[in-house]
Amino acid sequence: MPLSFEVLSTAGPARRGRLVTPHGVIETPAFMPVGTLGAVKGVTPQELAAAGASVMLANLYHLALRPGIDTVERLGGLHRFTGWTGPILTDSGGFQVWSLGGLRTVDEGGVTFRSHLDGSPLRFTPEGVVDFQERMGVDIAMVLDECPPWPVEKSVAEASWARTLAWARRARAASKGGPGGLFGIVQGSVFPDLRVQAAAELAELGFDGYAIGGVSVGEPAPERRQVVEWTAPALPAEKPRYLMGVGYPADILHAVSHGVDLFDCVLPARNARHGVLFTRDGVVKIKNAKHKEDPRPLDPECDCPACSRTSRAFLHHLTRAGELTAAVLGTLHNVRFYLDFMADLRQAIGLGALTEMGEKHATRSTGGDPPEEPDPGSLRVSSDPLEQRSS
Amino acid sequence: MPLSFEVLSTAGPARRGRLVTPHGVIETPAFMPVGTLGAVKGVTPQELAAAGASVMLANLYHLALRPGIDTVERLGGLHRFTGWTGPILTDSGGFQVWSLGGLRTVDEGGVTFRSHLDGSPLRFTPEGVVDFQERMGVDIAMVLDECPPWPVEKSVAEASWARTLAWARRARAASKGGPGGLFGIVQGSVFPDLRVQAAAELAELGFDGYAIGGVSVGEPAPERRQVVEWTAPALPAEKPRYLMGVGYPADILHAVSHGVDLFDCVLPARNARHGVLFTRDGVVKIKNAKHKEDPRPLDPECDCPACSRTSRAFLHHLTRAGELTAAVLGTLHNVRFYLDFMADLRQAIGLGALTEMGEKHATRSTGGDPPEEPDPGSLRVSSDPLEQRSS
Repeated sequence: MPLSFEVLSTAGPARRGRLVTPHGVIETPAFMPVGTLGAVKGVTPQELAAAGASVMLANLYHLALRPGIDTVERLGGLHRFTGWTGPILTDSGGFQVWSLGGLRTVDEGGVTFRSHLDGSPLRFTPEGVVDFQERMGVDIAMVLDECPPWPVEKSVAEASWARTLAWARRARAASKGGPGGLFGIVQGSVFPDLRVQAAAELAELGFDGYAIGGVSVGEPAPERRQVVEWTAPALPAEKPRYLMGVGYPADILHAVSHGVDLFDCVLPARNARHGVLFTRDGVVKIKNAKHKEDPRPLDPECDCPACSRTSRAFLHHLTRAGELTAAVLGTLHNVRFYLDFMADLRQAIGLGALTEMGEKHATRSTGGDPPEEPDPGSLRVSSDPLEQRSS
Repeated sequence: MPLSFEVLSTAGPARRGRLVTPHGVIETPAFMPVGTLGAVKGVTPQELAAAGASVMLANLYHLALRPGIDTVERLGGLHRFTGWTGPILTDSGGFQVWSLGGLRTVDEGGVTFRSHLDGSPLRFTPEGVVDFQERMGVDIAMVLDECPPWPVEKSVAEASWARTLAWARRARAASKGGPGGLFGIVQGSVFPDLRVQAAAELAELGFDGYAIGGVSVGEPAPERRQVVEWTAPALPAEKPRYLMGVGYPADILHAVSHGVDLFDCVLPARNARHGVLFTRDGVVKIKNAKHKEDPRPLDPECDCPACSRTSRAFLHHLTRAGELTAAVLGTLHNVRFYLDFMADLRQAIGLGALTEMGEKHATRSTGGDPPEEPDPGSLRVSSDPLEQRSS
């Protein structure tokens, strides 16, 4: 088996686990920083490791366009290419393809689309996508799926799931079993019976792990949380569970408490580039004038490169001036914040203190600046849909 | 004495020295990476130290506009503000003010100008500029000078020097002697007798070090080199000599061989942001298609974060995609390259092998891609003059 997963301890549905991959061990629950094109924006592979990342996510769609799968393969695979030597999960690109809207056409065999960069035609098939990921040598490959929009008619969601399931079956059959593992993706929009049915049908195919897809597409936060509550317990307990594209720390805490093990989100890096920084006492919008002469570290409990050497005042100054170093320091901090948060979650599960940690987080995290985004359900929705899960 | 300088060994006019400052020792010849607003663009203070920098340059003009000298002072000075704990030299801002053209007016007392950011009026005087720098707690402060354009009539250069000398006298008198030292700046355009006279007049004032200013303003490389050859030997041998805003490695090598000790230039960082990378075998324009599938490190003799873990192909990929990480990795490399080059120069002087090193450099460095800029004399000249020495 290329992947092995062990649940070390539980606290209710929450699990403290260990996922062993060809390129290293992932202690779960784990957050996977997003390196769309092979690098987290502004972060070297060495700094990503120093921040405590145990796994990086990259994006098949973007890598297929640039530099191309053949190039990555000829250069020795994605690890050698990127210089990130730990485990890598590649998103199948399904989400990005669906985001293309009119630029794609779907048939039973796969999806044909045009590059958002130069309009050149490309085709993703369930088999081809598995082949791409195996040729790049990733540790965790994802199946090609169809991600319905929100809201959607139930009949449309059912038909879409039928296709995604058929594709999952073909992907499973196409996998040559290496070098890493293959995860299936549950869809079913916000329909509880469809989600539960989908989880059971997917589990029959025997994947190495199971993802909950189709969230963070604009649905309200309560609906997203319900999807997690319906779907996670319906997935095989002995395999890792991955909630795709979510989210804020509170969302992650909620999902962990319902048994989810893996997460990715562009939030920490993208917010950092916009001067929105996470701290244990809430979100800081560093451009605000109140931070101009604040000599305190951004988060005194953090020892990232920003917090250990500079002040809120310096981060304010660099951010207001549009300096590259603001994005670098902010991203290093936010990514570190997420990774520290996951470490706290793992410890709390081990100690049976997840509820207490949740209460403490909920209390402390309200102390920051007024939130920028009213609803994290819109995480992936912007004028440039391709930016959503990919930057 | 806040600064002490010792010449450890010589090789002809070239000197291997040690400059002790309140915040640490600078082994000379030394290159000062440019952190205009308090940080080298894209580089954390920790990474700058890891690259081998012993001193950082910041810019008074830019800091006076943002965040303001009062703010820096209230936050405990420039070291605490920026998180860079080693020596800091601040450029006086004279060069930036002259670059403002019509936005400034000069009188005997100083220069009045308008912020290029919001048009607000500011005034720099010889005394005020020293006060600003002392309040920020820098290790090396520079006097306010007037930087004549090139070409310029000799009579204009003489009148300009008379004013700069008067200002230098007032700056020297205004200095409260701490916490760091104060450097004078020799001007005189490309007139040998004026340069030699200026050096002697400035030396009489007894500065802690002497800069050669007024170069890299558009003059051809041979004229710039002549300025160094006339001026450096006319400066006091027992004090450090600083060539402002220069340049390519070959320019630095030339100036070192004529007795210059300190350098700064935006070239390594700015070129990195444009995909122009330095190697021991010449300049690499990483966007060129020839690098697309090159699995070799950028420079196999370099152990910067880029060269130690990634390939030319990956840097090509990130640069073509416009990724932030391309600028970060490229800047870390180019700055490291310059700092390694200085270390090689110091070693060569100590071994009496500077000529051999120069010949080796000249031979090897022709192996790269065709040069982008035909004449390094135009280093500081672009459509945005303020970008010249400041980014």
